[in-house]
Amino acid sequence: MTSIFSKIIAGDIPCYKIAEDDRFFAFLDINPVAKGHTLVVPKEEIDYIYDLEDELLGDLFKFSKKVAAAIEKVIPCERIGLTVLGLEVPHAHVHLVPLDSRGFIDFKNKVQLEKDEFVAIAQQIAQNFS
Amino acid sequence: MTSIFSKIIAGDIPCYKIAEDDRFFAFLDINPVAKGHTLVVPKEEIDYIYDLEDELLGDLFKFSKKVAAAIEKVIPCERIGLTVLGLEVPHAHVHLVPLDSRGFIDFKNKVQLEKDEFVAIAQQIAQNFS
Repeated sequence: MTSIFSKIIAGDIPCYKIAEDDRFFAFLDINPVAKGHTLVVPKEEIDYIYDLEDELLGDLFKFSKKVAAAIEKVIPCERIGLTVLGLEVPHAHVHLVPLDSRGFIDFKNKVQLEKDEFVAIAQQIAQNFS
Repeated sequence: MTSIFSKIIAGDIPCYKIAEDDRFFAFLDINPVAKGHTLVVPKEEIDYIYDLEDELLGDLFKFSKKVAAAIEKVIPCERIGLTVLGLEVPHAHVHLVPLDSRGFIDFKNKVQLEKDEFVAIAQQIAQNFS
């Protein structure tokens, strides 16, 4: 069973890509709860986050740290929150979400963005990724 | 400035302890959003999660994985979600939260537990930590 994220990684489904290396891939969430809301996934299709072996798990968060640093350079926010829930798509993914002063992530409140906004945000974050 | 978590780690403030090693400490959140809601913190008092250097950051999540496995053995749930927000206490902490079928963490809805429930839950999770 190929997950929607594996299809995105393979380029079969388009996305607003932020960054990738040999093991991880980052792209904008298309149902964002905040501008700059990004998903970071391991390229290997593993459903449950705690089923990642230790090294891959640790490195996923080190990669996410670099993505968060790039988001922070572009999106005005207090901090970048992170969360892993994982009951929707059976492919482990870290949500990186710019936090405002309320300080929490509200998955019930989505932000509406136009396509050109997604493009611009992804481009800016990607340019700041190092 | 000593954070409330550093005081808990030092034993100056009581907690419902789950586990610790030389670098990390896990205990029940006293304002849980679900039974078994646990906090995992680095003993070193660092405010922002992304300011942890890479090795410590990776190891924090490896330690959290072991704590999550123990929670899962005790608390009936779909999965253990994890989230880092961090605008309240200036000491990085991972929330580990048993998820029900709704699949998200609602920080606005707290669960009321009696002291003996906290004690029993902490004891059971601690016994399953390995």
